Amino acid sequence: MKIGRVVGTVVSTINSPVFDNRKLLLCDLLGTDGRPTGGYTIAVDAVDAGAGEVVLILDEGTGARQIVQQRTAPIRAVIVGIVDEMVVDGALVVAPGM
Amino acid sequence: MKIGRVVGTVVSTINSPVFDNRKLLLCDLLGTDGRPTGGYTIAVDAVDAGAGEVVLILDEGTGARQIVQQRTAPIRAVIVGIVDEMVVDGALVVAPGM
Amino acid sequence: MKIGRVVGTVVSTINSPVFDNRKLLLCDLLGTDGRPTGGYTIAVDAVDAGAGEVVLILDEGTGARQIVQQRTAPIRAVIVGIVDEMVVDGALVVAPGM
Amino acid sequence: MKIGRVVGTVVSTINSPVFDNRKLLLCDLLGTDGRPTGGYTIAVDAVDAGAGEVVLILDEGTGARQIVQQRTAPIRAVIVGIVDEMVVDGALVVAPGM
Amino acid sequence: MKIGRVVGTVVSTINSPVFDNRKLLLCDLLGTDGRPTGGYTIAVDAVDAGAGEVVLILDEGTGARQIVQQRTAPIRAVIVGIVDEMVVDGALVVAPGM
Repeated sequence: MKIGRVVGTVVSTINSPVFDNRKLLLCDLLGTDGRPTGGYTIAVDAVDAGAGEVVLILDEGTGARQIVQQRTAPIRAVIVGIVDEMVVDGALVVAPGM
Repeated sequence: MKIGRVVGTVVSTINSPVFDNRKLLLCDLLGTDGRPTGGYTIAVDAVDAGAGEVVLILDEGTGARQIVQQRTAPIRAVIVGIVDEMVVDGALVVAPGM
Repeated sequence: MKIGRVVGTVVSTINSPVFDNRKLLLCDLLGTDGRPTGGYTIAVDAVDAGAGEVVLILDEGTGARQIVQQRTAPIRAVIVGIVDEMVVDGALVVAPGM
Repeated sequence: MKIGRVVGTVVSTINSPVFDNRKLLLCDLLGTDGRPTGGYTIAVDAVDAGAGEVVLILDEGTGARQIVQQRTAPIRAVIVGIVDEMVVDGALVVAPGM
Repeated sequence: MKIGRVVGTVVSTINSPVFDNRKLLLCDLLGTDGRPTGGYTIAVDAVDAGAGEVVLILDEGTGARQIVQQRTAPIRAVIVGIVDEMVVDGALVVAPGM
């Protein structure tokens, strides 16, 4: 799993009920220092994440379909949680209000 | 999931019914700035995408086979939607007519 | 899926019937300009591809096992077709005789 | 599989019982020289690993769910063992107390 | 699939019967010139490979579990064969005694 920061949205007409009430969020992938690595992914939002929030991203199709409780869904990456706190080498890298 | 731009076609004689009425499209992968990253993928077209269009690409075998409604199909990447709009950091990166 | 060019063969004693009448081909991965990207993969040949030919490579275990029609097989990449033609930005990049 | 070193923790409110008694650990990926490669992953801890320990990481969803004995779980990477010893080219790279 | 050279061993206490009589081998990944690419993987040995040998590595969980004949096993990469010969562009890159 990776952490990312929500930086945008993608609107696309996709013929699959999994997208009916869910947003596709564009997330910059973050390194262990909390900074963007240059990579990104587009993930289905399963936790109502907002712009700028740091999130935990699962990038695996089977687990992604389990999260949205649909056996068939054309998805691979899903936001499974908002990161409340990340500590690296004893230092807070992500925390509320940072 | 990733976004890409359709830049070409691949013609190959493949012995699988999944390719009977579907094109194989060559897509440049795009970054969050809408520019090519240097990578590409070859995806089965499930939405009748045209040259130059920005598309949403799912690169996962199980979900890809679900989209084309075939249990067995030698595919991994599939175009699941045409991107109507992409907003990054509040700015439109992809929009109709861009 | 990716395109590659067959550049060699790998001979290995593997205890699995999937390899009984099939070759393991070493393929340089090609970019959208038809040139090697520096990466490679070793793929099971399902189409009787020859040295120098440009091929379509599926790199996904489940689809690979479906192509060779074996439920259990220690394979992940398989050559699913010979590329007859590839057009990028309106120009022929791969064609018969090139 | 890869080896990594536990360097931090991630706290996130995730609606899945798989996380009830398990920590999410941030691991620097290590090269064969035992040094960080620059990459990282966030893995579910299945072995009660501590900060600074060198661990074996499995990054595959199906195997990860088997380890935690849950059929449905939004996870992909899991720490499956603490590395007691790693020998490369005849030299000890990881050993107790190093 | 990739080729690698066995360069070391990893000892880890893992609570899974798949590891009872099998070694975890550290393999440098090799390029088509037979030289290390800089990457590596840790693979379960299914063929009794020795230090320095060039091996064929399958890096896919389902196929890996089939090779070791266990439905549940926390593994992803497995050594499926010792490479007896590799020919690239007509030249021997790997051969007995090289």
